[in-house]
Amino acid sequence: GTLLAQGDFMSKCDLVLASQSPRRLEIVGMMGLADRVRVVVSEFEENLDKSSFKDPRDYAIANAEGKAREVASRALLDAEGEGAEPIVVVGSDTIVDLDGVILEKPRDDEHAFSMLSSLSGRRHLVHSGVSIFTSKLGKDKAAVSFCETTQVLFTALSAEEIRAYIRTREPMDKSGSYGIQGEGGQFVRKVDGCYFNVMGFPMHAFSRRLAEVIRDGKA
Amino acid sequence: GTLLAQGDFMSKCDLVLASQSPRRLEIVGMMGLADRVRVVVSEFEENLDKSSFKDPRDYAIANAEGKAREVASRALLDAEGEGAEPIVVVGSDTIVDLDGVILEKPRDDEHAFSMLSSLSGRRHLVHSGVSIFTSKLGKDKAAVSFCETTQVLFTALSAEEIRAYIRTREPMDKSGSYGIQGEGGQFVRKVDGCYFNVMGFPMHAFSRRLAEVIRDGKA
Repeated sequence: GTLLAQGDFMSKCDLVLASQSPRRLEIVGMMGLADRVRVVVSEFEENLDKSSFKDPRDYAIANAEGKAREVASRALLDAEGEGAEPIVVVGSDTIVDLDGVILEKPRDDEHAFSMLSSLSGRRHLVHSGVSIFTSKLGKDKAAVSFCETTQVLFTALSAEEIRAYIRTREPMDKSGSYGIQGEGGQFVRKVDGCYFNVMGFPMHAFSRRLAEVIRDGKA
Repeated sequence: GTLLAQGDFMSKCDLVLASQSPRRLEIVGMMGLADRVRVVVSEFEENLDKSSFKDPRDYAIANAEGKAREVASRALLDAEGEGAEPIVVVGSDTIVDLDGVILEKPRDDEHAFSMLSSLSGRRHLVHSGVSIFTSKLGKDKAAVSFCETTQVLFTALSAEEIRAYIRTREPMDKSGSYGIQGEGGQFVRKVDGCYFNVMGFPMHAFSRRLAEVIRDGKA
């Protein structure tokens, strides 16, 4: 089941998004939760040692959990009183994985050029880690953490196209140097899995996992 | 190559979208063409006999071509003069295909319920036909017409979820009774192909095909 089967809970829930990504907020809004959600930017420092994670998916989950835990430690303080509305805190982190190498945001134009060249004509993976804390379980333990993976196939790009794309500035604040919900969407021949995951938040998996948390009495 | 390699042409092109779908306009806007595009609603009557098409894909293409041709017959009149800016007219039609049966917009709540029940837990296809006319080639012959197909896997839905979804009214104006860029996105476990195609317009294929038309001197 999805959250559409949990309308009673969601109509009284205080949903806290521990992310300043406008794309994540947009996706949560699409789900009909625009009037339930608020953003609390996490103070979690994203400085985990990537090389200490055998699997890039674990790195995405650890970042998501770090962000959610930090916000939970503040937001769930308000949830002490009886009859207070339930609070759900959600952290998320999205990374691009090309043959096991994590591609982050480009440092400069040259770095963006080299990343886009490496993606040209090939498949890569996008992983989103998601971590959910609830006022019911408290700030010490996530109700659930998981990772959703989507495979993306890029069209073959000429140097001219890559340079034209970099001139739009769109790549500069994006993991992997492209935005699928922008001009970069033209480069994507095929998505295999959840599209919203590539945008930054796995809508279906989040809906199903949070519905489970609610059904299991953990929220 | 994509349209990103055709910046010179696109910067002077008058792009006419023969569709009143706000989602198609949004996708063309994402491609960085918001300031080039204008909408001219087609007067083409969508009353082709579905049963006369062996393949649902041909039906989508015929509708797209009908829409584009009607708008081209009016819009391309302005393009007679020397040195006038080139005009590109684009028609599109999107249909949902469940095992060869075309699902259109629901007539009422009950019809939406039966369509969503038939999609539950299963794969279906979304076809978008696209047809492009240009001032260079004139109103008699499309520069190119094509169809892009995406496979969508729905999660298993309970009657309760379907009813909750119908109460949002979102299904009522959508082919197949769901919108992927809304609450209905929660039902989509997996997309295999172009996501934008499911939203109503195949961004990558359009970008590549129009770039070809330009490169071949047909625009």
